[in-house]
Amino acid sequence: MNFSPALSALIAALKRLPGVGPKSAQRMAFHLLERDRAAAALIVQSLQDALVKVDHCSQCRMLCDGPLCPICQNSARDASLLCVVESPADVVAIEQAAGYRGRYFVLMGHLSPLDGIGPHELGVPLLEQALDHHQVRELILATNPTVEGEATAHFLAELARKRQIKASRIAHGVPVGGELEYVDGGTLAHALAGRLTLD
Amino acid sequence: MNFSPALSALIAALKRLPGVGPKSAQRMAFHLLERDRAAAALIVQSLQDALVKVDHCSQCRMLCDGPLCPICQNSARDASLLCVVESPADVVAIEQAAGYRGRYFVLMGHLSPLDGIGPHELGVPLLEQALDHHQVRELILATNPTVEGEATAHFLAELARKRQIKASRIAHGVPVGGELEYVDGGTLAHALAGRLTLD
Repeated sequence: MNFSPALSALIAALKRLPGVGPKSAQRMAFHLLERDRAAAALIVQSLQDALVKVDHCSQCRMLCDGPLCPICQNSARDASLLCVVESPADVVAIEQAAGYRGRYFVLMGHLSPLDGIGPHELGVPLLEQALDHHQVRELILATNPTVEGEATAHFLAELARKRQIKASRIAHGVPVGGELEYVDGGTLAHALAGRLTLD
Repeated sequence: MNFSPALSALIAALKRLPGVGPKSAQRMAFHLLERDRAAAALIVQSLQDALVKVDHCSQCRMLCDGPLCPICQNSARDASLLCVVESPADVVAIEQAAGYRGRYFVLMGHLSPLDGIGPHELGVPLLEQALDHHQVRELILATNPTVEGEATAHFLAELARKRQIKASRIAHGVPVGGELEYVDGGTLAHALAGRLTLD
């Protein structure tokens, strides 16, 4: 099926969205052009706006407009707790879980030497600055529980140790509300190894 | 979680894409801003372009740039066969199945009086023009096998009958490659009622 050039170009562009294949891209294009041109105009305008305005927070590397993100600007957040995560989505997940009142540092990835991603690409110099100059008491390592995430956490823990700052890793174990029967072996092994004494 | 204004606006806009919820919209926004700004620029440009250029074909109502779609422009297509479908995606589906060499007419919906969608909204006057002035020998009704699709097909068959043009409905029956055991009752009843004699 040959679409006209402008339509083909739009479908090809929409296919570059994460999780969107040829069928969904086509459906999105038809929907926008046929039923919701207002949404199409809104997407154009907000994307243009975001491309100009949204950049990394100069302190925590979270995506935000302006030099400082709302969390870094908020003086009510505890600056002595610094939680290191891999992506902005992780910040959202932790914020939604609520309860955490410290600050964040977003690596935007994990150490992956084969892909050319080293400490510099993850903004580690900026993190070291924060550890040197700010009043961080505890570095909470909340990178993903994958091989790369663990390696990254170990690397960062070393940076904290050198500065006599406490480093901690989020707990790995059985998900709350889950059933043991359906938990994978790796997680169960972690949960057993990390068991806590009940008083 | 409060995102900065430009980021929130972008996520809200992406949520208006069909099949995209809050989580996917957020993931798309982060992906575009963090990893693929080139794709973001491409989407902006192709959407702007499509909003200006893409309109309905003046003959068949398919979405296309310019006054006539590639199929209506193609003189090798048999103008005596006119296949009526509900949406541009249906044209794509039939073209991909291959074999059909006639033309199309896209209703962009089906009769739905309660939603204020009558013959005029479906471009029926344009279809009547085509039936009056062109050399259509057969009107193939390929609306969806739903209550509304069937009603629309009956309405259009009446228009053809008045002009002594043959009207046909695509066959309903057991899908090719399917197993009878898993076919729903309505389809099986249709397949039995529409059985063909073997020579």
